[in-house]
Amino acid sequence: MAGAGRGCQKIRGSQIRDVLDTKHSVLFDCDGVIWNGEKAVAGATEVVSLLKKQGKNVFFVTNNCTRPRENYVQKFSRLGFTDVAQEEIFSSAYCSAVYLRDVAKVQGKVFVIGGHGVYKELREAGVPFVEGEADDPGMTIVDCPLDSDIKAVLVGYDDKLTFLKLAKACCYLQNDDCLFLATDPDPWHPLREGRVTPGSGSLTAALETATGRKATVIGKPSCFMFECIASQFGVDPTNSLMVGDRLETDILFGANCGMDTMLTLTGVSTLEEAQAYKDDQAPEKKIYVPDYVVDTIADFLPVIEDNE
Amino acid sequence: MAGAGRGCQKIRGSQIRDVLDTKHSVLFDCDGVIWNGEKAVAGATEVVSLLKKQGKNVFFVTNNCTRPRENYVQKFSRLGFTDVAQEEIFSSAYCSAVYLRDVAKVQGKVFVIGGHGVYKELREAGVPFVEGEADDPGMTIVDCPLDSDIKAVLVGYDDKLTFLKLAKACCYLQNDDCLFLATDPDPWHPLREGRVTPGSGSLTAALETATGRKATVIGKPSCFMFECIASQFGVDPTNSLMVGDRLETDILFGANCGMDTMLTLTGVSTLEEAQAYKDDQAPEKKIYVPDYVVDTIADFLPVIEDNE
Repeated sequence: MAGAGRGCQKIRGSQIRDVLDTKHSVLFDCDGVIWNGEKAVAGATEVVSLLKKQGKNVFFVTNNCTRPRENYVQKFSRLGFTDVAQEEIFSSAYCSAVYLRDVAKVQGKVFVIGGHGVYKELREAGVPFVEGEADDPGMTIVDCPLDSDIKAVLVGYDDKLTFLKLAKACCYLQNDDCLFLATDPDPWHPLREGRVTPGSGSLTAALETATGRKATVIGKPSCFMFECIASQFGVDPTNSLMVGDRLETDILFGANCGMDTMLTLTGVSTLEEAQAYKDDQAPEKKIYVPDYVVDTIADFLPVIEDNE
Repeated sequence: MAGAGRGCQKIRGSQIRDVLDTKHSVLFDCDGVIWNGEKAVAGATEVVSLLKKQGKNVFFVTNNCTRPRENYVQKFSRLGFTDVAQEEIFSSAYCSAVYLRDVAKVQGKVFVIGGHGVYKELREAGVPFVEGEADDPGMTIVDCPLDSDIKAVLVGYDDKLTFLKLAKACCYLQNDDCLFLATDPDPWHPLREGRVTPGSGSLTAALETATGRKATVIGKPSCFMFECIASQFGVDPTNSLMVGDRLETDILFGANCGMDTMLTLTGVSTLEEAQAYKDDQAPEKKIYVPDYVVDTIADFLPVIEDNE
């Protein structure tokens, strides 16, 4: 069904069963799909449990780099998901660490713009790194020490970003041999009461403009997170389903990786936006069109309960 | 000579005299043209004095927004330029203030990412503004106060940038009625010993990515700085010459405004880069080709001394 058949098809009941029956693996985005903030989407805990009881692989793929995977396990547990294992969680922080260790095989240290989630995953992967903190509050980019062993710059969401961190990253990236990675391309994130916060993609754009270089992006819609899952679990995209709430990240990610895609309407994107991509004359917009649309993943419940 | 005739012509002696004879006004970029850091380009003080003695208008157009114009006057004086008046200096900070007061006629306050130079010019222009400082070191974008009277965000070089400033700017720019201005598009600036620092353009890119909006850029290569000069001094672009060291800002600015352009090789761009634009097959690259090239503006000296 992937490719030409993408139909933005709103499905329910037995149609959902027909889709799930052909899939061995279901990949879920977290924010806007499984939970919103500290509140699980109604029915999501049961959906995850029942899919696993039916023998399906369930994975969680999130561009959020602020937490290490162990904190995700705790959050799943706190929100009532009792059977999610750390190995099933693929965050952009974890996958960035895997990339640096196994793909780039970086020889030297990584300069990090990011936070706790990134630090912890790098530490667990055994990748040496330097936190981008100011060495000394009085220092400027003119007089601060630079580490000659920095071989990569990794940029993620960093709510303690300072000008000095940005400037140091620019200096390191002057060296073309220094890798330039971004955890994810998310431009912004919604907060409460209409407030927003700049995402990793925003900070990456600052560095891309300052250096004239393009970052290698680890998170969705790049395929690297799927490659991590495939290499660890032997998953085949043709019998996998990607379920997400953002057309430009989740749905594009699924399409890029060759999976069928499903938009759920409990998060950012709307059915109207999906339909607008479908109706757009420009062929390059079709890749944002999901194969299927559901109001919520709770719509899975009647059909997977039946199956038991 | 503007337009089709752009020839990247290396000129000297009487050729320079022929060019200057047709011009009533000469616009100079500062960094890399008039001075490098705290050192005047050899001969530059005499060039400026002699051009003025010959009755030419001399203007200084700089994207550097870090200093108010009065500090430029002091710097000119300190470096041996004895006859430069504040009115002849058009900085991106000053022109941003003029734009907000006279063009946008902003009704409300301006949220500023920037520094002393921008603050001072806004104050002198009578434009109310809020410094983007953290209200309280412990605050985050979730709980910090926002000012409902903010009607514009102005972004310039800010070596005290924090994440909270960026995040607040994003929140203000959620309102489509809030103007989005950038002092200048400079992506980075060279420092000593191969170090670099992100420029206003880098910080603007972070906000453009986070908000999905495009900033109105005041500095070169936008024409607004020339419009400021033209409105105050009645200058005609067809008898004005723009002299600069950066093809992508100064030369493009001159071309955008309908002036003849001259590249001087005491700064960033090289003759090879100019020639590469000339040789490029893509017609849109021709706009970066200067009409004339000199090694240094000191090459003016023999011909303007002669003229006295």
